[in-house]
Amino acid sequence: MDLAALLDRIAGDVSADIGRGAVADYIPALARVAPRRFGMAVAEVDGSLHGTGDWEQPFSLQSMSKVFTLALALSHGEGVWARVGREPSGNPFNSLVQLENEDGIPRNPFINAGALVVTDELARHGDAADALLGFLRAECGRADIHVDPEVAASEAAHADRNRALAYFMASYGNMRHPVPSVLDQYVRQCSIAMSCADVARSALFLARHGVRDDGTRLLDSSAAKRINAVMLTCGTYDAAGEFAYRVGLPGKSGVGGGIVAIVPGRCAVCVWSPGLDARGNSVAGVSALDRFTTLTGWSVF
Amino acid sequence: MDLAALLDRIAGDVSADIGRGAVADYIPALARVAPRRFGMAVAEVDGSLHGTGDWEQPFSLQSMSKVFTLALALSHGEGVWARVGREPSGNPFNSLVQLENEDGIPRNPFINAGALVVTDELARHGDAADALLGFLRAECGRADIHVDPEVAASEAAHADRNRALAYFMASYGNMRHPVPSVLDQYVRQCSIAMSCADVARSALFLARHGVRDDGTRLLDSSAAKRINAVMLTCGTYDAAGEFAYRVGLPGKSGVGGGIVAIVPGRCAVCVWSPGLDARGNSVAGVSALDRFTTLTGWSVF
Amino acid sequence: MDLAALLDRIAGDVSADIGRGAVADYIPALARVAPRRFGMAVAEVDGSLHGTGDWEQPFSLQSMSKVFTLALALSHGEGVWARVGREPSGNPFNSLVQLENEDGIPRNPFINAGALVVTDELARHGDAADALLGFLRAECGRADIHVDPEVAASEAAHADRNRALAYFMASYGNMRHPVPSVLDQYVRQCSIAMSCADVARSALFLARHGVRDDGTRLLDSSAAKRINAVMLTCGTYDAAGEFAYRVGLPGKSGVGGGIVAIVPGRCAVCVWSPGLDARGNSVAGVSALDRFTTLTGWSVF
Amino acid sequence: MDLAALLDRIAGDVSADIGRGAVADYIPALARVAPRRFGMAVAEVDGSLHGTGDWEQPFSLQSMSKVFTLALALSHGEGVWARVGREPSGNPFNSLVQLENEDGIPRNPFINAGALVVTDELARHGDAADALLGFLRAECGRADIHVDPEVAASEAAHADRNRALAYFMASYGNMRHPVPSVLDQYVRQCSIAMSCADVARSALFLARHGVRDDGTRLLDSSAAKRINAVMLTCGTYDAAGEFAYRVGLPGKSGVGGGIVAIVPGRCAVCVWSPGLDARGNSVAGVSALDRFTTLTGWSVF
Repeated sequence: MDLAALLDRIAGDVSADIGRGAVADYIPALARVAPRRFGMAVAEVDGSLHGTGDWEQPFSLQSMSKVFTLALALSHGEGVWARVGREPSGNPFNSLVQLENEDGIPRNPFINAGALVVTDELARHGDAADALLGFLRAECGRADIHVDPEVAASEAAHADRNRALAYFMASYGNMRHPVPSVLDQYVRQCSIAMSCADVARSALFLARHGVRDDGTRLLDSSAAKRINAVMLTCGTYDAAGEFAYRVGLPGKSGVGGGIVAIVPGRCAVCVWSPGLDARGNSVAGVSALDRFTTLTGWSVF
Repeated sequence: MDLAALLDRIAGDVSADIGRGAVADYIPALARVAPRRFGMAVAEVDGSLHGTGDWEQPFSLQSMSKVFTLALALSHGEGVWARVGREPSGNPFNSLVQLENEDGIPRNPFINAGALVVTDELARHGDAADALLGFLRAECGRADIHVDPEVAASEAAHADRNRALAYFMASYGNMRHPVPSVLDQYVRQCSIAMSCADVARSALFLARHGVRDDGTRLLDSSAAKRINAVMLTCGTYDAAGEFAYRVGLPGKSGVGGGIVAIVPGRCAVCVWSPGLDARGNSVAGVSALDRFTTLTGWSVF
Repeated sequence: MDLAALLDRIAGDVSADIGRGAVADYIPALARVAPRRFGMAVAEVDGSLHGTGDWEQPFSLQSMSKVFTLALALSHGEGVWARVGREPSGNPFNSLVQLENEDGIPRNPFINAGALVVTDELARHGDAADALLGFLRAECGRADIHVDPEVAASEAAHADRNRALAYFMASYGNMRHPVPSVLDQYVRQCSIAMSCADVARSALFLARHGVRDDGTRLLDSSAAKRINAVMLTCGTYDAAGEFAYRVGLPGKSGVGGGIVAIVPGRCAVCVWSPGLDARGNSVAGVSALDRFTTLTGWSVF
Repeated sequence: MDLAALLDRIAGDVSADIGRGAVADYIPALARVAPRRFGMAVAEVDGSLHGTGDWEQPFSLQSMSKVFTLALALSHGEGVWARVGREPSGNPFNSLVQLENEDGIPRNPFINAGALVVTDELARHGDAADALLGFLRAECGRADIHVDPEVAASEAAHADRNRALAYFMASYGNMRHPVPSVLDQYVRQCSIAMSCADVARSALFLARHGVRDDGTRLLDSSAAKRINAVMLTCGTYDAAGEFAYRVGLPGKSGVGGGIVAIVPGRCAVCVWSPGLDARGNSVAGVSALDRFTTLTGWSVF
C-alpha cells in the first residue's frame, strides 16, 4: 500500500472538515492557533514514515501526553492501577461527580483526574515532565522536543479546575505529592510541542507491543496491548464509543487538535487539525482516521 | 493451533474460578441453576467447531440476545441509531439516571433501556422475539431453539424495573409500540435457551464481517465491524473497560452466565459458567476468555 | 385588618405579573386555560371568608391535592413515613434520579413519587380519590366538588412518567397495590376542580392545628404542625427555599396555577393564576403571597 | 414560663441521648472533645438569659458561624445572592456534584461551598473572620471571644476538600479573592470558640428582626426574617426537612455539636452536645430542641 499517496488522498477527502469545529479557547495560547491547519503522519513498525499537509508542524500535545505518561508509569510496575480505574467515565473529561461517588478514585487514566494520579505516581521516580521529555526525545530522535513556555504559563494560569480535582483527590488520600508540584508537572507535560511525525514515531512502541525505537522494551507485550485497550475504551473523552464505532482503532485525542491512533503490529498514526467538536476531539482528525481505516481496512474489528 | 486441546487446558486453568461469584437471583428460574457448570465453545470461520465441559448444555441467553437483536435491527437500516447512543454508560445496566439526563435516549443498545428501544425498532417488522428465534435457528442449524417458558414467565413477573425504563422512555416519545407488547418481546428474547455451541455458531457472522451461515449477508462489512466496536466498548455492563483490558476482544455477557466474544476474521467464542461478579459478568467466563487471548495471542490489540 | 380590601389591593399590586409565565401544557385540558385569570381567597379560623378576582372560579387542584392526601394518610397513623422521606429533593418534581440512589424511597410526599406512595398507603382504607373528595366536600361544605372527567382522561393519557415512577418504586417493593390502580386514584385526585374559596376553607384544618370544620380532629396538633413543616421545606418543588425566603409561609403549589398557604393559628390562603415559572409555581400567585406576608407581617419568621 | 426550670427538665429528658452519636473526627482537635457534655441556653428578647448544664463552656462554632457571616455579608447589601442560591441542597454539606451541575453557584449559603462564597463576599470589606469576631464580641459583650488556634491549625491542615470546593468555584469565576486567603478566613471563622450563652446572645438579633444588642439595626426586618427562612430550609445539612418536622424552628448546626435556633419575636436558643448523627447534627441537641418546642409550643408552625 502506498501510504504517502493514501495520506494525500485522505487530506483531500476531509478538506471540507478542515477548519470546522472550534479551536480550544480556554487558554489564550491555544486560542491563537490558526484553525485551518491539517497534518497527518504514519510511522510503520519497519521504521518508514509518511506524511501529508502540516505533518512536520509542532502543536500542543495536551491530553495526548496522557498515553505516554501512563506507559512510563506502568514501566515502573502496576501500582498505579490501585489508584485509578480502567472504565469509560461516561462524563466529560474534567468532571468531579464521578470522583465524589467513587471515593476519589478516578474512573480511568485519560480523564484529567486520572492523569493527575498517573503524574503523581510517575513523580515518585523524579520529575514526571522531564521523564516524559526524555522518552519522547529518544523515541522520535529529536533532542529539541520541549515544553512550550507560553502554553505552560497560560495553562498554569487557568488551572483552577485541575487544582480542584487534585485537592479533591488529596482529600481522599489519593495524592502522594503536594498538589502544586503535581500540577506543575502535569501542566508541563500537556504543554509539550510536537509534530505529527514526532508523535507517530514516539507512539510506535504501542504498535510494536512494547518495544522502543532502540529495540529495548518499555513494557511487556501484554502491558502494551492493555494500554491500547484503555485507549480504545477511554481515549477520546466521552466520545470513546463513537470513535470505536467510526474509526475502530485505539486512539487518544488532545484539545490541541491532535489524535494518535495505533494499528497493532503495523503502525502508529497521528493526525492534527485544531477545530474541535463538542466533546473536544478534532473534527477533521476523526474524519481522517475514519477514512484511513475505511481505505486500509485496518480497523481492529 | 489445536483448539480442542486448548479449550480443555483453559477449563483446567480456570477451575478454581468455577463456582465463584453468585448465580443471578432476581428471578427464581435463574437462581436454581447449579453454579459449578462450565462450558466453552469455539466456532471457526471455516465451519469447524470445538468445545469443552458443558458446551452443549443449554442456558439462558439473557443479555447476550442484545447483540443479535441489534444486528437484526441494523439489517433493516441505521434508523435505530436515532433512538439510542453508542457510548459506554458508566452506570449499571438498569440505571434510569442517564436516561433522565439525556432526554430518554439510552446511552447504548446493550443496557436494558437501549435493548428495549432496539426491540421496539425491530418490532416494526414483526414480532422481535420470533425474528430472533428464526435467525438463531438458521445460523446454528437447530430448529429446536426455543424460549424457555418458565424463565419467560418468571422474567415477566419480575419486570417492574424494565417496565419503568420503558414507560420512562415512552414519556420522552422514544417508544413506538405499547410498552406491554415491547416488554413481552424483550422478555422472550432474554429467555431463549441455547448452548455454548449454538451461540458460538450463531455469532459467527460477526467474525465473518456480516456473512451468514448460508453465505448471504446479514450486514455489510462495515456494519458488522461496528457491532464489534459497540460490543467492545459497551458489551459487559459497567465493566467494559476491564474486559477490554483483560480479554481484549469484543464481547457480550448475560446474567445467565454466558459471554460471547468475537475474534474478527477468525472465530466466535462462547463461554458459560453461572457464577457472576458484582457487575453481572461470569467470573469463570471472564477468566477463561482472558486465558484464551493470552494463550492464542488473538486479542484485537 | 380589612382582609377584603387587602386582597383587592394585592390583586392590583401584582397585576403586572398576571398572565406572565407559561400555562402548563403537558396535557391539553390544562393548556386551554386562559392565562390572565387571578383569584385569591382567605379563610380565617373564625370562619370568615374573603376573596378577590376569580376566587370562586374552579380550577384544577393538581399537586395541591398532595397536602390533603398526606393529611388523610396520616390520620390513619404514621406508617407512611416508613415509605417516604421528609427532605427537600433538590431535584425537579418528577425526577427518578433520587429514587435510584435511595432504594425507591421518595425524598418527600410532595414530589410525584412520594405522592404516589401516599396514595398507595391511603388506598389501604378504600379508594383514595373518593376519600379525598369526601373530605374536601365536608370541609368546604360543597357536595358538588368533583373530579373533572376531561382533565382526568387527559392526565391518564399522558401519565407515562408517573407510570415509570410507580413501576420503579414497585421494583424496590415500595408499592402495595397494582400500579394501574394507584395511578388511577392519583390521577383522579389531581383532577379535582375547586375554587380558591373552596381550597382555603378545606385547608383551614392546618391553620387550626388539626381541627376540622365540624370541630372534630383529623390530626393531633403535633401532626398538623408537622404537615406545615413539610409544606414549608418541600411544598413548592425545587423552589421551596425561594418560597420560604420570599413568602415565609408553609405552602403547596400545583401546576394548575394554584397555591395554598397556611398562617398557623390564623388563616388559610389560596391564590390562583395559571401562568407558571420555570419550576412550576404560579408567577402571580407567588407574588401575591409575597405581598400578603409583607403587608400583614404574617410570615412565620 | 419558668425557662430556667424548663431547661433543667429538658436536660433530664434527653439524658439518654447525651453521649450518643459520634464526635466529629475529621480533625484531631475536635475528636478530643469529651462526648458526654451537654449545655443549653436561652436568650430572650428582653435581655434575660437562662441556661443549664455546660452552658457556659466554650466549644467550636464550626458551621454555626455561617449564620453570622451571612448576616454580616447581607448588612453590606444583597450582592451575595448573585453568587449563591437559597435552595436546600439535597446533598451532603461538602458535595461538589451540585456545583458542577449548576455552574459553580452553590445551592445555599450554609453548605461549605456557599459559606466560602459568603466569606469571599464579606472579605471585600476587610478580613471576614475579624469582622465576625468583632460582631460576636459586641453582641455577647465579651471581648475575649477568640479563634482557637489549635482548632484553626488543625482545620487548615485538613482543608483539602474545602480547597477543592473553592478552586472549583474559582474555575467558574465565582471567587473574588485568592483561594488561600478566603480559606484562611473561613477556617478562622469556624474555629471560634464560644459557649451556649454567648451564641444565644449573639443570635438574638435574628429573634429581634434585625436589631442588635445596642439597639441599632444590623438588617431590616425583612432581611432578618429571610435569614430565618434560609436557616429553616437549609440550616441542618441534608436533614433540614427532618429538623423542621421535629423541631419546627429556624436552626443552624455545626459539627462542633452546637445548634442555634430562633423563636422569632421571642428568643434565641443554643444547645451543645458533641455526639453527632450521620448527617452531622448533634443527637442530644436535636432531641433537646424537639422537647423545647413540644413543651413551649413555640414552633413556628
